[in-house]
Amino acid sequence: MEKHQLIELFKSTFPFWDNMTEDDKETLIRSSHHVHFPKGTNVHDGNECTGVILIRSGSLRLYLLSEEGKEVTLYRLFPGDMCILSASCVLNTITFDVFIDSEENSECVVVGGCAFESIAQRMPEAKIFALETAASRFSDIMWVMQQILFMSMDKRLAIFLLDEIAKNNSDIVKLTHEQIAKYMGTAREVVSRMLKYFVSEGIISSSRTDGIRILDKSKLRALTL
Amino acid sequence: MEKHQLIELFKSTFPFWDNMTEDDKETLIRSSHHVHFPKGTNVHDGNECTGVILIRSGSLRLYLLSEEGKEVTLYRLFPGDMCILSASCVLNTITFDVFIDSEENSECVVVGGCAFESIAQRMPEAKIFALETAASRFSDIMWVMQQILFMSMDKRLAIFLLDEIAKNNSDIVKLTHEQIAKYMGTAREVVSRMLKYFVSEGIISSSRTDGIRILDKSKLRALTL
Repeated sequence: MEKHQLIELFKSTFPFWDNMTEDDKETLIRSSHHVHFPKGTNVHDGNECTGVILIRSGSLRLYLLSEEGKEVTLYRLFPGDMCILSASCVLNTITFDVFIDSEENSECVVVGGCAFESIAQRMPEAKIFALETAASRFSDIMWVMQQILFMSMDKRLAIFLLDEIAKNNSDIVKLTHEQIAKYMGTAREVVSRMLKYFVSEGIISSSRTDGIRILDKSKLRALTL
Repeated sequence: MEKHQLIELFKSTFPFWDNMTEDDKETLIRSSHHVHFPKGTNVHDGNECTGVILIRSGSLRLYLLSEEGKEVTLYRLFPGDMCILSASCVLNTITFDVFIDSEENSECVVVGGCAFESIAQRMPEAKIFALETAASRFSDIMWVMQQILFMSMDKRLAIFLLDEIAKNNSDIVKLTHEQIAKYMGTAREVVSRMLKYFVSEGIISSSRTDGIRILDKSKLRALTL
């Protein structure tokens, strides 16, 4: 990636770019890397400061991960979006861990977290920009959480199945009722009963050997609205 | 409340107090009210900008509320704490609604949101303070959310029962299994099975007429760890 392209990208992303000193601009440019994440790469694993990620193509998925390996998708980032939750050294008041995977082959620019933080220390408007970006994402996250917490089981299961087929790029979910129940934090009976209802509605077919096959994706999606 | 007491409170709460102009100090003082919230008062209902709340005595509970009336407690605030999520005009990037009730008779100072916001506009350090306070609360909220999302049912039910008896100041929970299941977003069978297990462990007794009586609070608490 050419330097002038990087400058254009920063100019359009950071509203404080024009107010930066030439030295700080250089620092930010030198700390940045153009990175290609093949589909399925773990981009950020919660603990470290990966940096500020600008997405140029593809998509990234942010999620929570439990100790038992259960995931809850928070939101997805697309070209033009910026990820600040991956820069824990910038947002030191935020102490929870998110995980980020590339869902497609993704081209990103990763800005060094320490370089960004050193500038944010000197420029309140950069600090405010980082915090406000995080705050607006929190509103998204809270929305997702409310959906999950307050949502009825049919809705939750529909979302779970749609997430699974999107993740695996297949119409078949090869999980047992027991596994799905575990992922969703509920009982197997609840999952089995709801899947039986989905079968009766012609939304899925279910067999011991083939797993769950989604027959009517639009009907499943309608359940999530 | 005397003016000099208010100034002392602001001095110890706002790290930017000494850097404020005398005019801004006056503005903040004039916009502030000393308010007594009797136990059980709804202090903030999600939509409006109630202001920045400083707790002097008692306790406030922040929670999410679904359209069906289901509540999820996010955290509690105690003397010395400050609530910024109630000042939506200060945090305009945050677009989700929290509700706040006083759990005890509470003495608070409520600082006008608009006054605070006008100062935050002029003083980046005030804006950063507000955003960082919110961000650190988000870390608490995410922790609660992860507990709920990833937690096993025994833990969730234990927390639910403890919350209920704390709320009602009684060792008896007068809810049917069906009602509890609805509150927790799960099936009645799941709740009944888990309550039966709690009975067998000597943690609760359960009867159709008296409801659920907590017999061993410390054992119930141990389940939440």
